[in-house]
Amino acid sequence: MTKANIGVVGLAVMGSNLARNLASREGNTVAVYNRSYERTELLITEHPEAGFIAAADIDAFVASLAKPRTAIIMVQAGKGTDAVISQLTERFEPGDIIVDGGNALFTDTIRREKEVSAKGINFVGAGISGGEEGALKGPSIMPGGSAEAYKTLGPILASIAAIAEGEPCVTHVGTDGAGHFVKMIHNGIEYADMQLIAEAYDILRHAGGYSPAEIAEIFEEWNKGDLESFLIEITAEVLKQVDAKTGKPLVDVILDQAGSKGTGVWTVQTALNLGTPVSGIAEAVFARSLSSQASQRAAVDGLPADATKWSVSDKAAFVEDVRRALYASKLVAYSQGFDAIRAGAKEYNWNINLGAVSKIWRGGCIIRAQFLNRIADAYDKNANLESLIFDPFFKQAVATSVSSWRQVVANASLAGIPVPAFASSLSYYDGLRSPRLSAALVQGQRDFFGAHTYKRVDMEGTFHTLWSGDRSEVEQAPSTH
Amino acid sequence: MTKANIGVVGLAVMGSNLARNLASREGNTVAVYNRSYERTELLITEHPEAGFIAAADIDAFVASLAKPRTAIIMVQAGKGTDAVISQLTERFEPGDIIVDGGNALFTDTIRREKEVSAKGINFVGAGISGGEEGALKGPSIMPGGSAEAYKTLGPILASIAAIAEGEPCVTHVGTDGAGHFVKMIHNGIEYADMQLIAEAYDILRHAGGYSPAEIAEIFEEWNKGDLESFLIEITAEVLKQVDAKTGKPLVDVILDQAGSKGTGVWTVQTALNLGTPVSGIAEAVFARSLSSQASQRAAVDGLPADATKWSVSDKAAFVEDVRRALYASKLVAYSQGFDAIRAGAKEYNWNINLGAVSKIWRGGCIIRAQFLNRIADAYDKNANLESLIFDPFFKQAVATSVSSWRQVVANASLAGIPVPAFASSLSYYDGLRSPRLSAALVQGQRDFFGAHTYKRVDMEGTFHTLWSGDRSEVEQAPSTH
Repeated sequence: MTKANIGVVGLAVMGSNLARNLASREGNTVAVYNRSYERTELLITEHPEAGFIAAADIDAFVASLAKPRTAIIMVQAGKGTDAVISQLTERFEPGDIIVDGGNALFTDTIRREKEVSAKGINFVGAGISGGEEGALKGPSIMPGGSAEAYKTLGPILASIAAIAEGEPCVTHVGTDGAGHFVKMIHNGIEYADMQLIAEAYDILRHAGGYSPAEIAEIFEEWNKGDLESFLIEITAEVLKQVDAKTGKPLVDVILDQAGSKGTGVWTVQTALNLGTPVSGIAEAVFARSLSSQASQRAAVDGLPADATKWSVSDKAAFVEDVRRALYASKLVAYSQGFDAIRAGAKEYNWNINLGAVSKIWRGGCIIRAQFLNRIADAYDKNANLESLIFDPFFKQAVATSVSSWRQVVANASLAGIPVPAFASSLSYYDGLRSPRLSAALVQGQRDFFGAHTYKRVDMEGTFHTLWSGDRSEVEQAPSTH
Repeated sequence: MTKANIGVVGLAVMGSNLARNLASREGNTVAVYNRSYERTELLITEHPEAGFIAAADIDAFVASLAKPRTAIIMVQAGKGTDAVISQLTERFEPGDIIVDGGNALFTDTIRREKEVSAKGINFVGAGISGGEEGALKGPSIMPGGSAEAYKTLGPILASIAAIAEGEPCVTHVGTDGAGHFVKMIHNGIEYADMQLIAEAYDILRHAGGYSPAEIAEIFEEWNKGDLESFLIEITAEVLKQVDAKTGKPLVDVILDQAGSKGTGVWTVQTALNLGTPVSGIAEAVFARSLSSQASQRAAVDGLPADATKWSVSDKAAFVEDVRRALYASKLVAYSQGFDAIRAGAKEYNWNINLGAVSKIWRGGCIIRAQFLNRIADAYDKNANLESLIFDPFFKQAVATSVSSWRQVVANASLAGIPVPAFASSLSYYDGLRSPRLSAALVQGQRDFFGAHTYKRVDMEGTFHTLWSGDRSEVEQAPSTH
């Protein structure tokens, strides 16, 4: 009997599609297993062309795999994942490979890798982006785990990944949790990117007076230039859509409460732990939570606006200003995301190639975009770039955009259009480029009320002013309370 | 031998000062204990007037306490706290009271309360704000734990708390972790308040051309009005301070990298879990982390500013605009903080009286301010207020301020002055008051790429558009992937 070189556990939509993708590639024989056999049966009945080896129970599944056994778990992240890992670990042998292809929190992946690898079995946490369609036709794949496991796994994943400029969208990101970490940041960036697009739409609609259909055309135009990306493309599609029930633009009948699945929250929480500002992503997450405060929003009763109408005289120039503001803000969001990857790599001892990460995001995933070629170029030129914004190409892009960016944030602020991510990104940029920040005053306040001490610009050491005493300055060891 | 009605474990500055504060109040006899006896000896030698009962070891300490034994732990939050709790729990009897007065994370307090109360012993996590001076002269105290424990503990804490308008700044916040939760939010608000003040300073300095000494005078003036608060008062003191070594304003020789102790990070992480936007606090935390990216900031090389000079013609009007922007932004920060308390209370089943919380913040703590009387009034009038901003008093305050707020954010954006918290607060306000948000577009995008579904404004149910199919709309159960 033929054995499978790869198996998939968990046959909901993502798992089924990934299994079909695997089966469609030359050289793969795919074993499939699901806790309830019904789903398995459905899959093999609907897709006889895939030649799946269907397993009725976990023992049969394990027995159907050629060595080194390689199984991808596609179940909902959480306790289910731990249960399947434990079933497989009990049956697998040293050298075999367990892959978690779900959206696990990277610290869970680090823990699981430790537990599983202690038994000689390889554990690979792999972020998979691209949704259902990506899983079927070619996702972007971000595997962590050991280099040894990647020798076996790499070619299999490369066979199913999206292709961008001839290269498969998969790379060995780093050890243990590195893959899921990078997938988390990918999703965080996605939150920011979507929020920025939504703010651009809001401005075009309410200051520019454009209809959703007209804005769709603007986005289609933008999609031919620097902003070319999957998210811009689908935004145009969404804005073009007319609701069959009412004849209105669909966007006007969708309830304006945005949900989330948690990876945006994780990104911000992790960046807070790492001390890395990801303000654009945070504003995007909070914009969604604000939108979902249903009872609070229902209780709003005539809050004063006192806004000034944004008078748009030159419509083409206005649209171009918004485009530039979007581009510059987007650069900040990506820059902050890559900074978080650098900080995570340092904290968790991962050797992450930022250029390689940007390359595997060029295809298959939600944030796929032309833009990522520019990011790859920047990191190829300088792997230790302190900020994406410092790259000459992007610096030039900002030089072209910054005046428009300022105008858009200023006018939106006057006009009462909420632009949390545009404004936050601009303030981040102005903070980053400031030779002196008002943080000095904050340190002074902290020293005053909490004796938290401060450093000086002109000499080494840690200092404290005796605020409740004679106000002289004393040098001292850092405060420990 | 006289027994002590209260004991303090941990005699670093905060613990020593709290012990002295306790000893100074009529009716208290205070036992003190520290892991190393040197500190204990120092304390009793320097403060014979306190009449401390000094214990050389934990057994002697426990033996010196009258029943119900009541001990306040003042050690650095973390493992040290668990060690002391375990020492006391082994020796205490049912009905005795262990108080953790450190800056514990509220989830640790919930866990500890569960463990300790299982043995019949009361465990109270109490947030104490006011720094070293507050501990000595009267802090604001936020105790959680059981109502039973508060019967014994309340009068003792009331005896040492700050007094505001005749009332001691202490209240039984709620069960288990409620006290530490509220203290955490207090600190989060403190971060936002400090950042907002720093932004106001930055604008006065760089757009208004005022010197630190002149800005100190402006803050002193502001401290006579709506903004009257400890933080405004000490900001004036810091800005007045001249560095003896250089003759420059101290704020100009302090290194502009702001540190933090973690409670701001906790506040934002917790609010993210609760789905409550605390964008002002997040921007404040990120502004500090940006300031501390030393190598990144050192690598900045000529980032384009393309800023417009903020031409200030009427200086008095300009200063008043900044004052109003600060006031309105501050209102948002407090409003978001109180929203986080409401959300936490709901999540953890605490019955928290928001009016009572605002009253105990009127004295002793870092954010003490006149403003808190207005907040107390608002919650006294309507305990279920959906947002502080909806209170008629504050709505009127915003009506007076919002035009200035818009001008300040717009002009700072044009002038290249970073105003992350001002701008974020304004965008939050504009988002809150918007009858329709661009979140509808975000939901459309999510449905397009992830089949995440959406709700409609005009009918019940959950819907999905078949984007890759014929683009008709189907009703369906919410997606689970």
